Amino acid sequence: MSPRLFDGLVLPASADFHVHLREGAMLEAVTPTIKQGGVDTVFVMPNLVPPITTVEHALAYKSAIAKYTDAKCLMSLYLHPSITPATIREAKKAGIYGVKSYPAGVTTNSASGVVDYEQFYPVFKAMEEEDLVLNLHGEAPPAEDITVLNAEEAFLPTLLDLHRRFPKLRIVLEHCTTAAAVEAVKKCGPNVVGTITAHHLSLIIDDWAGDPINFCKPVAKLPSDRVALLKAATSGNPKFFLGTDSAPHPLRAKKGGLGAHDAGKCAAGVFTQPYATQLVLEAFEDAVAKGVVGQSQLSKEVLEGFLGAFGRNFYQVEPSRQKIKISAKDEKVIPMLSVSGGSGTDSTAADVVIPFRRNSPIYSLEWIQA
Amino acid sequence: MSPRLFDGLVLPASADFHVHLREGAMLEAVTPTIKQGGVDTVFVMPNLVPPITTVEHALAYKSAIAKYTDAKCLMSLYLHPSITPATIREAKKAGIYGVKSYPAGVTTNSASGVVDYEQFYPVFKAMEEEDLVLNLHGEAPPAEDITVLNAEEAFLPTLLDLHRRFPKLRIVLEHCTTAAAVEAVKKCGPNVVGTITAHHLSLIIDDWAGDPINFCKPVAKLPSDRVALLKAATSGNPKFFLGTDSAPHPLRAKKGGLGAHDAGKCAAGVFTQPYATQLVLEAFEDAVAKGVVGQSQLSKEVLEGFLGAFGRNFYQVEPSRQKIKISAKDEKVIPMLSVSGGSGTDSTAADVVIPFRRNSPIYSLEWIQA
Repeated sequence: MSPRLFDGLVLPASADFHVHLREGAMLEAVTPTIKQGGVDTVFVMPNLVPPITTVEHALAYKSAIAKYTDAKCLMSLYLHPSITPATIREAKKAGIYGVKSYPAGVTTNSASGVVDYEQFYPVFKAMEEEDLVLNLHGEAPPAEDITVLNAEEAFLPTLLDLHRRFPKLRIVLEHCTTAAAVEAVKKCGPNVVGTITAHHLSLIIDDWAGDPINFCKPVAKLPSDRVALLKAATSGNPKFFLGTDSAPHPLRAKKGGLGAHDAGKCAAGVFTQPYATQLVLEAFEDAVAKGVVGQSQLSKEVLEGFLGAFGRNFYQVEPSRQKIKISAKDEKVIPMLSVSGGSGTDSTAADVVIPFRRNSPIYSLEWIQA
Repeated sequence: MSPRLFDGLVLPASADFHVHLREGAMLEAVTPTIKQGGVDTVFVMPNLVPPITTVEHALAYKSAIAKYTDAKCLMSLYLHPSITPATIREAKKAGIYGVKSYPAGVTTNSASGVVDYEQFYPVFKAMEEEDLVLNLHGEAPPAEDITVLNAEEAFLPTLLDLHRRFPKLRIVLEHCTTAAAVEAVKKCGPNVVGTITAHHLSLIIDDWAGDPINFCKPVAKLPSDRVALLKAATSGNPKFFLGTDSAPHPLRAKKGGLGAHDAGKCAAGVFTQPYATQLVLEAFEDAVAKGVVGQSQLSKEVLEGFLGAFGRNFYQVEPSRQKIKISAKDEKVIPMLSVSGGSGTDSTAADVVIPFRRNSPIYSLEWIQA
């Protein structure tokens, strides 16, 4: 048992710069958990089916989300051939923050993704001019020598090339999972940053081998990669901040079907939303216990920076005026039952979402009146 | 579509030097599929629950298997502290062929496995004297820097050390999955050999990432490793021969439960028994189509050697007098329904075993009268 380092800690509300909130019954179930995780600001990913490729769709989605939370939602578009420089200018006026690029076929709902970046150079130019953020899912698409292990590293030359061509374009390398990605982000100018998820601070390949609940894209990698992520997240370098990539899937989809003859593939994604802040603190505490990170490194400034301040600064949003308080009176990570809907023949099965670290004890968190 | 290279090919019956036949209803269902896969000789692994650690248990198991097949069964013991040099001498007299070593905790039913090899040196000495085979599951047990990816390579110094200490001991490095393992086996004397499974000739890491049916231990690794296995299996080097590690699990276990709230881990193992020969030929054909292996390399001697002759020679069993014929009139790989039994509340769910390459077309195979 690790010592409880963060009992009584008071922090500004966290911000989570990479969330998947879905639609319909799942949206309704997931969105209220944003604040349960100590978060008051989220960057919302656009990979719905169909993806969000118009300003109108993004704004309608924003309204749909607002029914279930008062968290501040930064909206994004899905990089797609239908997006033009004019779309970018319209998006800027409408208060949209970023454009997410998915390489075709690498993760959940990425079938409409990018095959060739060059076709988007005029769009990137417009984004640079309008100061919109480019959010990169940084994995090379499937190819002969590309596996889930080296897909991120194989993408890094593309990151560096885009940075060179559009030096003022603000770029986020989303969900960094490798030491190589951390180094690439450090090497770039200050307008290139990386998000790190809560679960990649805890997982390695062995944790998802044979465990669909821990399977996500990019996959968690080697122990040395996890150490690099922990060091980046606790370094106080403003280039690295939290984006959980919290990705809820019904248990049915996580397991490729629950029927007696279903042998489908598992949906990629780890669900961390209700415990976003708590899971980061647990990972940091574990890293201290294992000697990966020195306890003295975990100053309040470092914690506040990674959990919100660095990202808010990058996205040019105001500091939070709300506060959260962490307590060592453990809660338990419980599976979530969505209220209604669900797909397939057995709606009760479709409605269970299993969170990361299911059934484990975890720090509890409360909101403090300002 | 690959050209059908093996249409009309007649071969001696194959031999499969690594099979898991289980017990009870699963044994009854799986054992008859040995010959469906063109195989008349099998080396049977002893990882039952409890494991087979006595000669009496091994012989009783042999009798149980014989009810369902006339295939020749080479029996083995599970390396365990209760096994002494006297056990080894008794085993030799009883016609037992090998002793299987499982490092503790690395795969299905390995909880009783080896923590420290040194305690078994007297047993290995007796095995060397009696000319019993040592069958190694070659993975280093879980540790800080050991992952499913490097566990096999990390085990190779142990292989080399055992070979050095017991130079006449016949050793099989079971289910080689890496280029490093192939090189290590080559480097040893002629009494150290390696088995290669059918599925590792086809799979890489991406194939089991998110697919419980393709998940096994040791896990399939990188494209370069798969190429090394294909080259070894088609090299005509008698050190490499087929051991499928066919490992049937009910779908329920493969998916960590099928219930609406089950979020367990997936059982490790790929089920290839009913198509053992056919799957190897499909993998070779694919390797030719992709230019990994030259078609001219696939002589009848090479095929016969890998599929049986090399292994029979190593285990000192007679050549087969039975023949099989391959036909390009494709069959379909179909899920297997075991006849009875099953565990859990829903026995129909527990009874489905999903074979490798489910629902794909595959060479058909018939036995020819001698």
